[in-house]
Amino acid sequence: MTLVDEPAVPDTGDGGLIRLRLDLAYDGTDFAGWARQVGGLRTVQAVVEDALATVLRIDQDGAALVVGGRTDAGVHARGQVAHVDVPAVAWRPLASSLTRRLNGVLPADVLVHRVAPAMPGFDARFAALSRRYAYRVNDNPAGPDPLRRHDVLWYKRAVDVSLMNEAAADLIGEHDFAAYCRRRLGASTVRRLLSLSWVRESSGLAVAHVLADGFCHNMVRSLVGALLAVGDGHRPVEWPGAVLAAGVREPGVQVVAPHGLTLEEIRYPANPAELAARATETRRHRG
Amino acid sequence: MTLVDEPAVPDTGDGGLIRLRLDLAYDGTDFAGWARQVGGLRTVQAVVEDALATVLRIDQDGAALVVGGRTDAGVHARGQVAHVDVPAVAWRPLASSLTRRLNGVLPADVLVHRVAPAMPGFDARFAALSRRYAYRVNDNPAGPDPLRRHDVLWYKRAVDVSLMNEAAADLIGEHDFAAYCRRRLGASTVRRLLSLSWVRESSGLAVAHVLADGFCHNMVRSLVGALLAVGDGHRPVEWPGAVLAAGVREPGVQVVAPHGLTLEEIRYPANPAELAARATETRRHRG
Repeated sequence: MTLVDEPAVPDTGDGGLIRLRLDLAYDGTDFAGWARQVGGLRTVQAVVEDALATVLRIDQDGAALVVGGRTDAGVHARGQVAHVDVPAVAWRPLASSLTRRLNGVLPADVLVHRVAPAMPGFDARFAALSRRYAYRVNDNPAGPDPLRRHDVLWYKRAVDVSLMNEAAADLIGEHDFAAYCRRRLGASTVRRLLSLSWVRESSGLAVAHVLADGFCHNMVRSLVGALLAVGDGHRPVEWPGAVLAAGVREPGVQVVAPHGLTLEEIRYPANPAELAARATETRRHRG
Repeated sequence: MTLVDEPAVPDTGDGGLIRLRLDLAYDGTDFAGWARQVGGLRTVQAVVEDALATVLRIDQDGAALVVGGRTDAGVHARGQVAHVDVPAVAWRPLASSLTRRLNGVLPADVLVHRVAPAMPGFDARFAALSRRYAYRVNDNPAGPDPLRRHDVLWYKRAVDVSLMNEAAADLIGEHDFAAYCRRRLGASTVRRLLSLSWVRESSGLAVAHVLADGFCHNMVRSLVGALLAVGDGHRPVEWPGAVLAAGVREPGVQVVAPHGLTLEEIRYPANPAELAARATETRRHRG
């Protein structure tokens, strides 16, 4: 987890608002994803916004969170980052106790590691440099581990981590990942995949660590599905790269289940000038 | 997990009964421990016995399990072992499908890795050579990990694994562990602690691996509590050994919470003659 330094004098900005950065973690099992939804589904955004409104004694609409990595239903986070603009007068008396107070109100499946004034220029979504996810797989033929059934995929065929890493090498770099994305009208599917490596942990789990400037919808889960098919011998090592090059969704690629996926870290530039430059650049590309 | 070989011809023993060995795993969170209790509390034994009775179509009293490591409420298992004597006529038609059928009936927090005829002389409780437990601790000052809140203790002070290993060295060997046990009238508290070592995993967790011929009640959780007090600097390295030598319970030893504890493995002799000898020896000592 990368934390920003607290500015000496928080910038209260327009209308006496102060921007707070939240670093948080959650077990996504019992959430319908990050984003607040109509109809009262339990989402992380709704639970955290409600907690902020309660603790700061502000209107719930005054605690709208902007998130660095929107997660789908069932997906977890250890290094989620969000920001919120709140009235400085509501924040100031709680400045030193806000993290503790929030956790006192939040349920056991969400934890705020830290809430503090954001560095000038900080934007949880647009200023992010990269997102890192982990996808955890148990390929023990004896069956799933009941203790990790919430955050580890059980895959019934044994996989070869070296083969999957060989196949992953063809995916690294800036590409149009349309073949691995659920399309959104008008949105680009070009992303820079910075690294994708599988590790066999001492626990026996096979874990994919995936780092990119950003991910389009379903991208990690589709990439992992394609690589598992190589790892278990059903597809040749060249297949995931060929699917990428073809540029269209391939029905043979299984989008693996969400519960194996955890957002581990989001990185941001270390100073205000770079934060602002990064946010401007992202807006231009994605807009 | 150590599995026994299936005997070529199952020994059906007296009254046409056959002894089955079960290797199983469970998430102890929603169980009131292993042992069946009056009053209908949900226990692992009750859930597995009921599943056996359903699948084998026998009376529930005919599926009484004997367990290798009785676990308390909230304690988990990856390598639990039990045996049960069932009518051979009920077992035979399901011989090859029993594991799959049991898992079809069992809830998601229990998994049977394997059910198969036990080697002659096998007794899950008395023939065991050793039990191995792991106790998992997260000492990250940023707070607990919501994803591992069920099987990892959060300890608010950082601990030094080397100091804890130094202190643990004084506990190894055959001793009267009365100072670390909840007394049961007439029961011996002499045990042989074969190893106790702390490892700092790549995930950041501090994990104690504890191996003994057997454990008296609360023993692992008391030992871990004493060692954590050394690891965080509150007690000198010599303290856990001094408590052991004093031979009486020390109120300063914290019995840590059950949810960090997992029974990882139970070992048995590899052949019938040694199994029988081991069972006889254990009965004489514990009787």
